[in-house]
Amino acid sequence: MQFDKYAQLYKNALLDDVIPFWLRNSGDTEFGGYFTCLDRTGEVFDTDKFIWLQCRQVWCFSMLYNQVEQKTEWLDFAIQGAAFLEKHGRDQEGNWYFSLTRQGAPLIQPYNIFSDCFASMAFGQLFKATGNSVYGQIALDTFHGILRKRDNTKGIYNKNYPGTRPLQSFALPMIICNLVLEIEHLLDPVLVSDSIAKGIHAVMEEFYQPDLGIILENVTPDGKFSDSFEGRLVNPGHGLESMWFMMDLARRTSDQKLIRKAVDITLNLLEYGWDKEYGGIFYFMDVKGHPPLQLEWDQKLWWVHIETLISLLKGYQLTGDERCRAWFEKVHDYTWAHFPDPENGEWFGYLNREGKVLLPLKGGKWKGCFHVPRGLFQCWKTLEAISAKEPGVITV
Amino acid sequence: MQFDKYAQLYKNALLDDVIPFWLRNSGDTEFGGYFTCLDRTGEVFDTDKFIWLQCRQVWCFSMLYNQVEQKTEWLDFAIQGAAFLEKHGRDQEGNWYFSLTRQGAPLIQPYNIFSDCFASMAFGQLFKATGNSVYGQIALDTFHGILRKRDNTKGIYNKNYPGTRPLQSFALPMIICNLVLEIEHLLDPVLVSDSIAKGIHAVMEEFYQPDLGIILENVTPDGKFSDSFEGRLVNPGHGLESMWFMMDLARRTSDQKLIRKAVDITLNLLEYGWDKEYGGIFYFMDVKGHPPLQLEWDQKLWWVHIETLISLLKGYQLTGDERCRAWFEKVHDYTWAHFPDPENGEWFGYLNREGKVLLPLKGGKWKGCFHVPRGLFQCWKTLEAISAKEPGVITV
Repeated sequence: MQFDKYAQLYKNALLDDVIPFWLRNSGDTEFGGYFTCLDRTGEVFDTDKFIWLQCRQVWCFSMLYNQVEQKTEWLDFAIQGAAFLEKHGRDQEGNWYFSLTRQGAPLIQPYNIFSDCFASMAFGQLFKATGNSVYGQIALDTFHGILRKRDNTKGIYNKNYPGTRPLQSFALPMIICNLVLEIEHLLDPVLVSDSIAKGIHAVMEEFYQPDLGIILENVTPDGKFSDSFEGRLVNPGHGLESMWFMMDLARRTSDQKLIRKAVDITLNLLEYGWDKEYGGIFYFMDVKGHPPLQLEWDQKLWWVHIETLISLLKGYQLTGDERCRAWFEKVHDYTWAHFPDPENGEWFGYLNREGKVLLPLKGGKWKGCFHVPRGLFQCWKTLEAISAKEPGVITV
Repeated sequence: MQFDKYAQLYKNALLDDVIPFWLRNSGDTEFGGYFTCLDRTGEVFDTDKFIWLQCRQVWCFSMLYNQVEQKTEWLDFAIQGAAFLEKHGRDQEGNWYFSLTRQGAPLIQPYNIFSDCFASMAFGQLFKATGNSVYGQIALDTFHGILRKRDNTKGIYNKNYPGTRPLQSFALPMIICNLVLEIEHLLDPVLVSDSIAKGIHAVMEEFYQPDLGIILENVTPDGKFSDSFEGRLVNPGHGLESMWFMMDLARRTSDQKLIRKAVDITLNLLEYGWDKEYGGIFYFMDVKGHPPLQLEWDQKLWWVHIETLISLLKGYQLTGDERCRAWFEKVHDYTWAHFPDPENGEWFGYLNREGKVLLPLKGGKWKGCFHVPRGLFQCWKTLEAISAKEPGVITV
């Protein structure tokens, strides 16, 4: 496998295709912020502004500025998005709304804690790029708000009857693991190491079920299986994404045991979630093989595949496990054959089970400028590192 | 077309297949109520009890007792479900929860007004069957609760920011049109006629868009188009279902103009929602042709097809429009070729775009003992009526 050639492919896709696509099509020069509902050709088909995606795009351009090249164009693009968010994004208590109109009027209340997570990531990364302490303070205040709300993230919008079936969800501890690294420069080191320890414990001891070999989306407060629709739910892509967060954390302390465990779970989850008939990774599954609630269960989503590629490459980089390399080639081939749109640029997001485009969009309510560029960046850099240690052709 | 033979087919499916399937598999003899999560063979795969489906099943067996035959087995089955609901279904203010555990503990709070709608239908129909005034009072109290909540149906669980983009939704006025007929025997005649007039106005003047020829799911408070994800949404099956409610209302006053309009909308919606490539009716569409938010947009659902068959048959019965008959044959052929499961009984609920079974269940969180039996009953009776007026072979 020619790691340097793969590295080049991911780098070029990032810098020559995906980033120019968003620069070209998504800026709202009139009201600030970004359009994310872009059709096949990049044309805007809806102007609502979803806080998740506004924040993720600020993060993305700040990150590129910090990690790739200090391009003014990138930083300006991030700053204009942040200005829109700063002005319109929060309620009086500092909670981030879920969505706004094009002009910035609130549409959907702050019921979703991931709006706060992505806001903290965005402003933390932009603070790194600019040194502007206003951004740092927003990142920090938002992070402390997340910690305050973590036990009842939906607040008054929580529809669960208290006490009947308490469950904890995978998404928040998983994202906090990544978030504390993102804003480490703003946090007390004790808070960082404490949050990391808690996050690793939750992901690897509570949501990971050793007897099943997979990660569940919802478990009881003490990390046990709940035989209910929520408790049986598996989102293979979610678990696969979290494994590269685990590997990043494990590297900090050279925790070989954690690295090994994260690589094993990656391989298990992929074996489990791979569609043996049509290829690609399923979106949702029921761990007991019952019909899941999610009608979209068999669809193939962009983020699932690119996040999996990151975990496989990091796993290979850290362990040299040949199964990671072999799976990387297989998932790479599926991904590049199905998601990118060579005609108009960027990637399709939603394929049906057979791999045909289900929604001809490049961005919408949930897909924006985030997983594709972050994944391309992570794969590029990891492939480059592998290639630097083992130069030239390794295997073909 | 041999209407009497079709009538026999729908009657036999109802009485020899579908009703025995639910009698055999769904009763919870230990805690009362019904299991609705039934796999391909009728085996229970989850025991949660969803108020929508508990109520709809009480309604179904009461309706059969009232309309088909006074079978003690049917009435007892309805009464045991009602006893479970009476004991566990409501909070202290009389609002119906969304779901309960098998034992009856509340799981999801009363955020969904359709739980109340189906409860009122169920207890109204059971009151008709038994004369027990306790049932009548529950139906009536619940109905008045619905009227009180109609302007903010989700109450404290409403996540829309007040005032930014006020929209009214199609489902509630549509269901109230049907509900007032269901519990007419319990209501003041002025309230009935007033509710009917309001319902017809909402469906036919506000949600129906004459320039587009179709019915929208969400419109502005004054019945205008909103160019947003919600505003662009079309659910062809929803509109098609509502048209037989309109025809039932129009028959009461022999309103020929309303009948004609309902038939024309039925034909328009079907032309619009029919999948020209694979057959069947799409689940969701965007009226401007943009990608809808719903990832399941291209799936083919059982209720959409059986409800359409009812509207087509009633349309043919009331107008003799040959297009209704031709479309009935086409939708009938698709439906019977894809949904019923001759091996294990009852119908599959969810097909992918190509018509293959997507979830191998007979019941779940949203599919229970309701649309299939109600639809088979309505089609059987309508076909019988057509056949009685025009005996024998009419066209082939």
